[in-house]
Amino acid sequence: MPTRDLSHPLDGETTVYPGDPEVEISPAATHEDDGYRVTAVGIGSHAGTHLDAPSHTEPGGRNLDEFEVGRFAFDARLVDCSGKEAREPIRVGDLPDESEADFGMLVIRTGWADHWTEDRYFDHPYLSAAAAKACAERGWSVGVDALSVDPSPSRRGREADGEPSGVPAHHALLGSERLILENLTGLADLPERFELRAYPLALADADGAPARAVAVW
Amino acid sequence: MPTRDLSHPLDGETTVYPGDPEVEISPAATHEDDGYRVTAVGIGSHAGTHLDAPSHTEPGGRNLDEFEVGRFAFDARLVDCSGKEAREPIRVGDLPDESEADFGMLVIRTGWADHWTEDRYFDHPYLSAAAAKACAERGWSVGVDALSVDPSPSRRGREADGEPSGVPAHHALLGSERLILENLTGLADLPERFELRAYPLALADADGAPARAVAVW
Repeated sequence: MPTRDLSHPLDGETTVYPGDPEVEISPAATHEDDGYRVTAVGIGSHAGTHLDAPSHTEPGGRNLDEFEVGRFAFDARLVDCSGKEAREPIRVGDLPDESEADFGMLVIRTGWADHWTEDRYFDHPYLSAAAAKACAERGWSVGVDALSVDPSPSRRGREADGEPSGVPAHHALLGSERLILENLTGLADLPERFELRAYPLALADADGAPARAVAVW
Repeated sequence: MPTRDLSHPLDGETTVYPGDPEVEISPAATHEDDGYRVTAVGIGSHAGTHLDAPSHTEPGGRNLDEFEVGRFAFDARLVDCSGKEAREPIRVGDLPDESEADFGMLVIRTGWADHWTEDRYFDHPYLSAAAAKACAERGWSVGVDALSVDPSPSRRGREADGEPSGVPAHHALLGSERLILENLTGLADLPERFELRAYPLALADADGAPARAVAVW
């Protein structure tokens, strides 16, 4: 079966959400000194390609480890929104039709993965509150090749440059027990329908976790 | 399809190989102070359920990120070695017959997952050098529900209590570009054949990485 990695590599250049822990990689054991190589890794629970649990934004929401592991293999449906400009909302009219509700995750391609590690990566299109609510109501989790489904603060400041404040798209989705998969890459030329496996790191009490996202079709 | 999680949770109680970084989990953002919850995570590249890359023990060996991601979905074959005593070798005669070579990973159940977090976890059975060499020659990667395919130092000392020194099973397998999956759990009552998905955390230059191991059959 054709298989494609949809995950960014985790290294010291990894773009993180403003205020989140940086990714730190350092040697813990070496061939020269120890006879084998081991690496120490410092990450945040939302580093790189990762899943958000309801508990990320919803007090009392479920952690990732409270979901059955099979829940992380999604019947996915790609929608191409790569025509959107920087900080432009993705609206209800950009979504697949409501009648087409036979899938578990809507995967939104913005094309913003091309800006990974650049300042521009923070200026991604985002999901309008109404569009996020529509996804939740239709039973769709959401994956995106951008830093967030809500507007991100710009790298220059810590404000979201006049965009709606807060995280309404997160609340709409996570408040309805849908999951959010952020920082995808490799979405160009994928078939419209595929299986998206995104088994997260097995963190206890996880408000989110890096996941190795893999498309199979 | 029936699906089972074969991964230990990563938390502050995680048993690590002597000398490896401890698992450290702490809040990085909270609902009260930040409006969302994020966690800082410190781990070693061989923490919890994890894959070893050839570069773990082989200078010049390949890193995990040099393998196609499809390589981490294994056609697996379970063998029950749960009758072995502490620090008893698993020998060539304990392996499936050589003629039965139509799978990609041999998954060895020692039963030692029951001792996770206990001192006894370090005293697991191990793969003899000859058995590891046989697996490598037959084309099998190896998964095990124990800390290592080689004897581990005991928790009390840093010595392996009179066992063969070094990591001959690692060298036999990783030196032949087979992969090793350690610290599995949940192997009891699995069917003899299943698909084992163990997509690793997308670490750059990875000598190993935690993987969410999932059985599907």
